[in-house]
Amino acid sequence: MEQGKKKKRKKVARQSVKTGMSPGYMAFVGEQKVDRVRIDIIHYDENSCRELTDVSPEQCRQAVAQPGVSWINVSGIHDTALIETLGKAFDFHVLTLADIVNTDQRLKVEEFKNYIFIVMKMLSCNDSNSELNIEHVSLILGQNYVISFQETFGDVFDGLRDRIRSSKGRIRTMKADYLAYALMDAVVDNYFIAAERIGDRLEIIDDRILSDPRQEDMRAIHLLKLDILNMRKAAWPLREEISTLSKYEGQDIKTSETAVYWRDLYDHTIQIIDMVENFREILGGIHDTYLSSLSNRMNEIMKMLTIMATVFIPLTFIAGVYGMNFEYMPELKWHYSYFVVLGVMFLITVGMLAYFRRKKWI
Amino acid sequence: MEQGKKKKRKKVARQSVKTGMSPGYMAFVGEQKVDRVRIDIIHYDENSCRELTDVSPEQCRQAVAQPGVSWINVSGIHDTALIETLGKAFDFHVLTLADIVNTDQRLKVEEFKNYIFIVMKMLSCNDSNSELNIEHVSLILGQNYVISFQETFGDVFDGLRDRIRSSKGRIRTMKADYLAYALMDAVVDNYFIAAERIGDRLEIIDDRILSDPRQEDMRAIHLLKLDILNMRKAAWPLREEISTLSKYEGQDIKTSETAVYWRDLYDHTIQIIDMVENFREILGGIHDTYLSSLSNRMNEIMKMLTIMATVFIPLTFIAGVYGMNFEYMPELKWHYSYFVVLGVMFLITVGMLAYFRRKKWI
Amino acid sequence: MEQGKKKKRKKVARQSVKTGMSPGYMAFVGEQKVDRVRIDIIHYDENSCRELTDVSPEQCRQAVAQPGVSWINVSGIHDTALIETLGKAFDFHVLTLADIVNTDQRLKVEEFKNYIFIVMKMLSCNDSNSELNIEHVSLILGQNYVISFQETFGDVFDGLRDRIRSSKGRIRTMKADYLAYALMDAVVDNYFIAAERIGDRLEIIDDRILSDPRQEDMRAIHLLKLDILNMRKAAWPLREEISTLSKYEGQDIKTSETAVYWRDLYDHTIQIIDMVENFREILGGIHDTYLSSLSNRMNEIMKMLTIMATVFIPLTFIAGVYGMNFEYMPELKWHYSYFVVLGVMFLITVGMLAYFRRKKWI
Amino acid sequence: MEQGKKKKRKKVARQSVKTGMSPGYMAFVGEQKVDRVRIDIIHYDENSCRELTDVSPEQCRQAVAQPGVSWINVSGIHDTALIETLGKAFDFHVLTLADIVNTDQRLKVEEFKNYIFIVMKMLSCNDSNSELNIEHVSLILGQNYVISFQETFGDVFDGLRDRIRSSKGRIRTMKADYLAYALMDAVVDNYFIAAERIGDRLEIIDDRILSDPRQEDMRAIHLLKLDILNMRKAAWPLREEISTLSKYEGQDIKTSETAVYWRDLYDHTIQIIDMVENFREILGGIHDTYLSSLSNRMNEIMKMLTIMATVFIPLTFIAGVYGMNFEYMPELKWHYSYFVVLGVMFLITVGMLAYFRRKKWI
Amino acid sequence: MEQGKKKKRKKVARQSVKTGMSPGYMAFVGEQKVDRVRIDIIHYDENSCRELTDVSPEQCRQAVAQPGVSWINVSGIHDTALIETLGKAFDFHVLTLADIVNTDQRLKVEEFKNYIFIVMKMLSCNDSNSELNIEHVSLILGQNYVISFQETFGDVFDGLRDRIRSSKGRIRTMKADYLAYALMDAVVDNYFIAAERIGDRLEIIDDRILSDPRQEDMRAIHLLKLDILNMRKAAWPLREEISTLSKYEGQDIKTSETAVYWRDLYDHTIQIIDMVENFREILGGIHDTYLSSLSNRMNEIMKMLTIMATVFIPLTFIAGVYGMNFEYMPELKWHYSYFVVLGVMFLITVGMLAYFRRKKWI
Repeated sequence: MEQGKKKKRKKVARQSVKTGMSPGYMAFVGEQKVDRVRIDIIHYDENSCRELTDVSPEQCRQAVAQPGVSWINVSGIHDTALIETLGKAFDFHVLTLADIVNTDQRLKVEEFKNYIFIVMKMLSCNDSNSELNIEHVSLILGQNYVISFQETFGDVFDGLRDRIRSSKGRIRTMKADYLAYALMDAVVDNYFIAAERIGDRLEIIDDRILSDPRQEDMRAIHLLKLDILNMRKAAWPLREEISTLSKYEGQDIKTSETAVYWRDLYDHTIQIIDMVENFREILGGIHDTYLSSLSNRMNEIMKMLTIMATVFIPLTFIAGVYGMNFEYMPELKWHYSYFVVLGVMFLITVGMLAYFRRKKWI
Repeated sequence: MEQGKKKKRKKVARQSVKTGMSPGYMAFVGEQKVDRVRIDIIHYDENSCRELTDVSPEQCRQAVAQPGVSWINVSGIHDTALIETLGKAFDFHVLTLADIVNTDQRLKVEEFKNYIFIVMKMLSCNDSNSELNIEHVSLILGQNYVISFQETFGDVFDGLRDRIRSSKGRIRTMKADYLAYALMDAVVDNYFIAAERIGDRLEIIDDRILSDPRQEDMRAIHLLKLDILNMRKAAWPLREEISTLSKYEGQDIKTSETAVYWRDLYDHTIQIIDMVENFREILGGIHDTYLSSLSNRMNEIMKMLTIMATVFIPLTFIAGVYGMNFEYMPELKWHYSYFVVLGVMFLITVGMLAYFRRKKWI
Repeated sequence: MEQGKKKKRKKVARQSVKTGMSPGYMAFVGEQKVDRVRIDIIHYDENSCRELTDVSPEQCRQAVAQPGVSWINVSGIHDTALIETLGKAFDFHVLTLADIVNTDQRLKVEEFKNYIFIVMKMLSCNDSNSELNIEHVSLILGQNYVISFQETFGDVFDGLRDRIRSSKGRIRTMKADYLAYALMDAVVDNYFIAAERIGDRLEIIDDRILSDPRQEDMRAIHLLKLDILNMRKAAWPLREEISTLSKYEGQDIKTSETAVYWRDLYDHTIQIIDMVENFREILGGIHDTYLSSLSNRMNEIMKMLTIMATVFIPLTFIAGVYGMNFEYMPELKWHYSYFVVLGVMFLITVGMLAYFRRKKWI
Repeated sequence: MEQGKKKKRKKVARQSVKTGMSPGYMAFVGEQKVDRVRIDIIHYDENSCRELTDVSPEQCRQAVAQPGVSWINVSGIHDTALIETLGKAFDFHVLTLADIVNTDQRLKVEEFKNYIFIVMKMLSCNDSNSELNIEHVSLILGQNYVISFQETFGDVFDGLRDRIRSSKGRIRTMKADYLAYALMDAVVDNYFIAAERIGDRLEIIDDRILSDPRQEDMRAIHLLKLDILNMRKAAWPLREEISTLSKYEGQDIKTSETAVYWRDLYDHTIQIIDMVENFREILGGIHDTYLSSLSNRMNEIMKMLTIMATVFIPLTFIAGVYGMNFEYMPELKWHYSYFVVLGVMFLITVGMLAYFRRKKWI
Repeated sequence: MEQGKKKKRKKVARQSVKTGMSPGYMAFVGEQKVDRVRIDIIHYDENSCRELTDVSPEQCRQAVAQPGVSWINVSGIHDTALIETLGKAFDFHVLTLADIVNTDQRLKVEEFKNYIFIVMKMLSCNDSNSELNIEHVSLILGQNYVISFQETFGDVFDGLRDRIRSSKGRIRTMKADYLAYALMDAVVDNYFIAAERIGDRLEIIDDRILSDPRQEDMRAIHLLKLDILNMRKAAWPLREEISTLSKYEGQDIKTSETAVYWRDLYDHTIQIIDMVENFREILGGIHDTYLSSLSNRMNEIMKMLTIMATVFIPLTFIAGVYGMNFEYMPELKWHYSYFVVLGVMFLITVGMLAYFRRKKWI
């Protein structure tokens, strides 16, 4: 839990690093997650597929100069100098580079003369406590290449890599825009997995509150709510983003063949949004259940107290009366009065319990 | 209740099956509800009506080649191979086929060159616990045929089937678009029945909370709320869907004669939306009533306790005073002091009760 | 209260009667309120005014064939056969007729070639319990006639009838569209009366909650809320409806002279909407007052208990101490210790009360 | 408080006076605030300024016929006959006249051929209890005159009157539309004063709730909320109204020179709206503070009770044990057992108090 | 806290100063923060940079007449006479001047013939209690000059001043519109710092409520909420403002080279809005946690009371029974009955505690 709070806190704190700097200043505000930035290339066309690992920016430029589609994957974004070199080799705008390394940058699509710049968020769930992690992923789609920037060596694109190598599906026969689509599709598929994990957490907390609601649960509900909100904030702009992309009309970068795929991807984002909104409703219900179970507990406790008190208080009073030390108290002398009093006490008790039963308290 | 949660859970879990797959991968994510997919054809024109049961995709293609209107009903959608064969026979897009078998696909209308693809949801209520079931229904409207896909052998289209057979109403004199309208109308009519069932549950829970509110009711309210929300989520896009259809202008598929019927259907969906919104308001009121009845109960309990305690505590104190063992307590020697004390106790009791009555506590 | 619930229930239940029927099936889903449907005609022009009572559909057709304006009033809509005959005489669309008898049909304006069809709701308040009644009223505005359909022999149009007979105001000099306007104006005026009644109920419940809030009040608040919502649902579409009518441009049916009157009517509906929204705010305040008065009551009760208990518990303890039977308790022998103890008890009581007064509990 | 409710009530009740009347029927639905309607004229141009008091409608018509700008101020609107005469002299529409005397008419701008009709609301605060009063003010802006209608002899236009007399500012050099602007500006300035008063009430109630929250405060919060809502309802349409006016393009009535002033006035209304929205937020916070202070009070009370009860109940039990009359109770004979028991009791008390201190209850 | 309330109050009170004044009346409604208004000029082009301190309005006019870009910074806005002189020298509209000195003026962009007028708000946090301060900043962007108006000698533009002096970044090579952008960028950077401080306060209050929630926290939550709302009110119009500026098309004032920078600034404002909305969510969660922790505390207290009372009340009753003074009570004579009773009491206690443990109360 501490972890969760600290993460949120950091996000806020780092942004002020840029104060007073001139615009376009490349400030990496995230947490460094890899030791060294590594660049890999997969170059393919319908017939061949070639892979290069740990290449230099210059090699990237050369790869792109050849016919076929190049997918350049950059793992790690803390090395602003390297990314600047890469940017210069491909003639990217200085603000594009600043956005690539700024992990606080929100989702967006920007069209430049020679490329489309796409900022995405990768959702994943922490294995230990199932908290939502958000990773910054950028794509640059040029005429015959896609450059992807990840914060770390993620395995999210492995399935796609295999499909390219083995020439499964349509990918090898399509242009770079289909590659961009396939990369985004892989990211969106991860949203579903993250949503499943959140669904699991919802179920766990729901079960716990039904069986034994506790003070900490309020906090857990709140943390879950924040995660659902973060997911929501990653899902809604994604829809807009894909909508923008599907309407983009630059023919040399985006081919008409991919239109139906963008529409399909758009459908997926709507499905994610539906799921997230559903989570919110379910969580709202859990919250209500929690609050009303607090009230019910209080009712239970008070009922217990009231029953005990109202049964015994009159009895204790009667005992008190015959504990008085007056000289003249005729009942004290009678032989069976002790048993009569005990009998009266028993009747009072029975009466009270009957009364409570009629009131459905017991 | 367990049932309800499990169902929701499954929905979330299944989607991730598709992760890493290429788009258009046909994944049936629902629960298999029939043993074998069955295809039936009703072929009719103004004068004749012919029915074929359990046909092959090839027979479907042949039926459609003849003049008249063909209604092809597919019961069961888990057999992706069969549906793919059917799709190839009619030249449907691969993503259309994927949507037909994806029971998580939300409502939509898609126009293709030679057909309109319509995804709907059929609402029905579980007979045992009245929970809302949502079934995935797709329609493909071509120039002279309609293909309907259901998850199971539902009886929802039986009334329509009878009207075709007996040539009741206008149906035999109209084109395929009227058939599509009639199928959708049958689905929408089922919304009304589902709404009635939800109305029944609302009434039952309302009565129960008025007579004897319990902790479980909060949960029941929440489950009902989720069902109403699901109904709402099925109703709002339906309105949009029918609005889109009524504005569709492809003359060879949609004739102008059906315009007024689409408008009527649109009116029905608005009526359903009104009902659902009404349910939400009523449920909101039940929720408030429940919460305030919890508070009232607490007040009742506390009043009981307070009355008992405040009446008997002073009396017990008095008894305690005269139970003290001081040697010199003059009242103890007086002859009638016991009765005087009893009298004082009685007066205190009467005074207290009068005070409570004036405060309207009893 | 039972009444109220039953009414709402029925509304839901009846709609399913139409399931499986072909569209345009005329199903009367309301409650029959008159024994026999009666048709009356008032035929007037600038100089003359003629009234016919209990006429046949054929007589209606003849009346309309003559010059001047005809107002045909149909009281009772359960006789679907009669209304169908009337509809055929005037060549109305089959769906129009279905909407006239469907009391669940919501407000709408539909333009047909030769007439405008208007569905309205008449609001009135039950005299016994002030509950809101909603009656289904339809108007058909043709070139030189208006046909009005009411569920019962209402007196809402009596003022208008008098103005026609006595040639008061502009009505006799105007065309049929002014008559339609005047009829709608009469209906809208009734909204104000219904609003007044709701205002009365608000005031009564407000007073009651201030003086003595009870558990049933929550229910009354909820019922009132539903009535206000129903009124709202009748008012908002009315605004749209009148806006649509005032923009209608068919010159042969709607004359330009009435434009300013439609605008005035539109103003009235906005005023009603303002009132209804105001009611919602006031009711929200009453709800809050109710809930906080529950809390305050609890505080009162608990304060009472706490004061009694904290005053007497220490005193009882002291009495208990001197009621112990130890052989050696020196105080018991002292002559004035009884009075000293009583004094101490008195001082404790005074101290406690002073403490409570300082805490503003008493 | 009674006052407040009665005022709201009346507003609702009066509207039904018009039921059954023909449209344009002039019904004064407010409270008569002056004995006799008085009409005053200020006639001015760049060089001269002439004032006429208590004139007839005919004199108004004559004044307007002369060159220069005429400002005709009508104080009191209950005399419908006089206003009808005035309306005929200037050829105003009958519905305009009905709106002038209908104090329930909401804000609006209507353009007629020869004049613009503006309905405004003047806000002021009752001096005794600071409740918001809303007065009905109408303006008619013609080519060279402005007629203002007030419910009473208000002093809100006095500053403007002085500026005209003393030729301060631009007013004497401008046309009638500037005069209309200046009148509206004066009304809007009064909104700020009313807002200040509401701000005062907010502060007072805020202080009171912090020091000593009481049951009546809930009511006061609610009344304040209604006043803020009323202010809001007067402010939002005002913005629209001024926006409409600033877009009006009839050159003979509105000159282009005033454009920048309308924009400035528009800015003021936005500022008022900001203030009102701010009040709502602050009031929301006060409401939350009130509710949570109720809960805190309850906690305080319960803590008091619990501490007293849990400390003394065990002690009383011990005393009770040694008050039993068994023949064989060895402790009773021991010489120091009384003091030992007292010591034990003291230790229990100290232990309990330490426990409560550790729990931060005391 | 007192401070905070007083500030808000003042804001409301001052506005009424202008009532009755003619429009364009320059009323300084803020708090005077500097002794004397000071005007400084930085005049630069690609090659040179000249600074003048404490100049007269006339010197400003002369500086602007020279080629190159002039940045005129005015510190202090209470001296309306000086600002009027400056305004006349540059031919600014009278309403522009009124807006410069009106610290209540909200954010806006106004285009005049020869300049663009921009009103901004500078956010900063009080060092002692971290409360949000809002300062009024105006910019006037002319063809070759920018005039900035601050309430005090802020250090917010120091970084920019250094960049101009040392010719760092692009600033010396760009036109006046880039200077305006750079000034606004500096202001926006301060929003991030203010947001960080609010984030700190959120964290502090969150920690406090988790460890020990108190009555004052409700107030602190509310104050924080108001600050977040104020920040929000400063952030949303900022977005609009920058959007308006980036769409401005007057070529002589705004060059096309800055377009990408405006877009970047726009992105920043969206990021701020995201942060603020996030704060609201987090604060909402803190509020819920606070309320539920109140309920939990109450449960704790009541549990304590109930356990103590239900354990000891029966025991005290038993003791009371054997404290009765009846002559014939056989148990009293038996030799071991005292120990038997003590044993029974012990068993009852153990039973009760076991019951409570099973109920998970202890």
